[in-house]
Amino acid sequence: MQNRPITFSIKTRSTKSHARVGTIETPHGVIQTPAFIPVGTKATVKGITPEMVKDLGADSMLANTYHLYLQPGDEIIKAHGGLGKFMNYDGPTWTDSGGFQAFSLGVALGKNITKFTSSARPGYDEISLKGSGHKVESENALLPAKVDEDGVMFRSIIDGSAHYFTPKKSIEIQQNIGADIIFAFDECTSPHEPVEYQKRSLDRTHRWALESLKTHVENTEAFSKQALFGIIQGGRHEDLRKESAKFISELSYNGIEFDGFGIGGSFAKEDMITAVHWVNSILPENKPRHLLGIGEPSDIIKGVMEGCDTFDCVMPTRNARTGTVFVNDSADTFSYVNLNLKNAKYKDDLGPIEWGCECYTCKRYTRAYMNHLYKAGEMLAGTLATIHNLHFMAKFMEKVRGEIVAGNL
Amino acid sequence: MQNRPITFSIKTRSTKSHARVGTIETPHGVIQTPAFIPVGTKATVKGITPEMVKDLGADSMLANTYHLYLQPGDEIIKAHGGLGKFMNYDGPTWTDSGGFQAFSLGVALGKNITKFTSSARPGYDEISLKGSGHKVESENALLPAKVDEDGVMFRSIIDGSAHYFTPKKSIEIQQNIGADIIFAFDECTSPHEPVEYQKRSLDRTHRWALESLKTHVENTEAFSKQALFGIIQGGRHEDLRKESAKFISELSYNGIEFDGFGIGGSFAKEDMITAVHWVNSILPENKPRHLLGIGEPSDIIKGVMEGCDTFDCVMPTRNARTGTVFVNDSADTFSYVNLNLKNAKYKDDLGPIEWGCECYTCKRYTRAYMNHLYKAGEMLAGTLATIHNLHFMAKFMEKVRGEIVAGNL
Repeated sequence: MQNRPITFSIKTRSTKSHARVGTIETPHGVIQTPAFIPVGTKATVKGITPEMVKDLGADSMLANTYHLYLQPGDEIIKAHGGLGKFMNYDGPTWTDSGGFQAFSLGVALGKNITKFTSSARPGYDEISLKGSGHKVESENALLPAKVDEDGVMFRSIIDGSAHYFTPKKSIEIQQNIGADIIFAFDECTSPHEPVEYQKRSLDRTHRWALESLKTHVENTEAFSKQALFGIIQGGRHEDLRKESAKFISELSYNGIEFDGFGIGGSFAKEDMITAVHWVNSILPENKPRHLLGIGEPSDIIKGVMEGCDTFDCVMPTRNARTGTVFVNDSADTFSYVNLNLKNAKYKDDLGPIEWGCECYTCKRYTRAYMNHLYKAGEMLAGTLATIHNLHFMAKFMEKVRGEIVAGNL
Repeated sequence: MQNRPITFSIKTRSTKSHARVGTIETPHGVIQTPAFIPVGTKATVKGITPEMVKDLGADSMLANTYHLYLQPGDEIIKAHGGLGKFMNYDGPTWTDSGGFQAFSLGVALGKNITKFTSSARPGYDEISLKGSGHKVESENALLPAKVDEDGVMFRSIIDGSAHYFTPKKSIEIQQNIGADIIFAFDECTSPHEPVEYQKRSLDRTHRWALESLKTHVENTEAFSKQALFGIIQGGRHEDLRKESAKFISELSYNGIEFDGFGIGGSFAKEDMITAVHWVNSILPENKPRHLLGIGEPSDIIKGVMEGCDTFDCVMPTRNARTGTVFVNDSADTFSYVNLNLKNAKYKDDLGPIEWGCECYTCKRYTRAYMNHLYKAGEMLAGTLATIHNLHFMAKFMEKVRGEIVAGNL
């Protein structure tokens, strides 16, 4: 197999769980794994500069293909020299494939599943595929999207315009955006769909995986610079999850396989780790495994113990903007609570957000100042709390790696 | 006269105008004058960190007594060790006296006068002074405030609660907030008030000036750390302006005079420089003169040529958040235009906001990226444009000083 732009190395394996500590070397730097990847949906980690992303201890960031395609458009990002140049971030970058956003936001809305759904914009008029020659397999009446065998037709959340994503198109967009690690285009089903639908959808996702791989391999220049991860789906069904893990991990085009894997799905909270366990029992040990859209520290621990290497989620940054911060609350290594800094009890609190925290915010500001900024509606509140929460995540992952090496996890 | 916390030194006087170049040394650093002072109304220059304020070239910042008194309250700021500690800014700080906000926001609203009025919150119910024993001199039905001989009763813009500011109270609040330079409490009249009102108001402002000075001098500790500027009013009337300049500049309590002067008023644009000319023909040369609420670069030039040393205004920061940036547009030293970065013509523009600009933003980002951030509603848009606009102001003032020294202004 030819040289690939990323190298995954496992340094330590846990004897107590499936956890492993390692590195993903990329053309833009090294990611220490297990890692939490901050999300910069629209080519900015909301409210903070790229220097702050680095200074707070994050190794890489993940942007969103769907959003960047709609605005500003992937061509203008390419004209800048890619995502990193566009947003002035020189660390490793990731893009998801847009499949989740294009189809599933509306379906997931309000159904108590863990993936981030706040970007959903319900209420758009249905669009028609009449005369398109496509057999419509699934419709989403909340955020109108229709999936057929070749791709997904969806409405822009910006202007309601109609767009059609195929695996080829998703990969071409991601090649233009130019992140170091990109993902195959998949259909992310709701866990509430019946098994018959999950099966048909999985077949589609697998065909789309091949189409994604083919598109990437055939663009020699992009292929030499960007790693492509395949996505495992299969809902909450053991047979489908294992079938998907086997199919995706064995898939090749011209002898070339995926560089790593994403584990996808709109999980019901209780199903997530079970599905991950099934999948990771099949996936090869020597490639990185990204658990898509999971970021609650307690969930990350579970994912790590099941052998996942990287995680992304908007929750720590979104929470920060609305006033909720992570705080270690006891001597227990992984124990934490969420504090709402808007709470009136913090208005005279001269302590930092978290005692002992070494982040920019905690070294400089009090809870009273943060409480004031939130109440005053000041932008700086979100900026300072985002720094704290992402630093908390970076330190949390550092502790996770330390505990694995120490033989405690 | 005893040692004062600030020292004003004039280094160069123009031979072509009343302009002068100098320094104001404060306990927290030196302000190069003429200077533009960024406004951090609520103890934060909106959207940027204190380090950014310093890095972009600003020497000091000005916060708002009215807003900080209402929230978080001056006592909690005092408990932090003052404004600088509260907001983690170690440079020189200023607070205005709150007179303008307490009374005039509503009056100024919609009357085409240049001072910033966007914080006005019209529509509050009138409050009653019945039985208070105060003769109500003026009422503001838009943002209900009533001025009497002793002070101003006003409604909180936050919760509608009633508050009463006297000169003594304003100074005590400013002592708690603890800025290096504070202002006497004044009544800022509308230029549309008749001359009879202006006269009565000016008498009040002069009595309040003495009360402010007395309150400050009698608090030995605060007086030793904070400079107090008297405010000149008088509307658009030459006799009143000159009378005010004479009165305020000669006023003393226990042999102690004001440390500097603020020139106040809700100016109609065409009256501003005329009034400044009258005032500065009377004020002593050896003390700094601050032109309150003026920040348009073309107005600053006029103020500088009439002998003003410092200026403050929210316009450069407010404009930045809504997409409007300053750009030098020709080889002419002081020539500039306003660009609206939200304009569709910038969406593919790979140039910086301003060619040749050395600010953080222009060295790293394109107009296309800025256009994208604004359209996406991203917080970083305001942050990056604020850095540019305040850097523009800092460079503009540096050029002003250079041109005075070079004998061109």
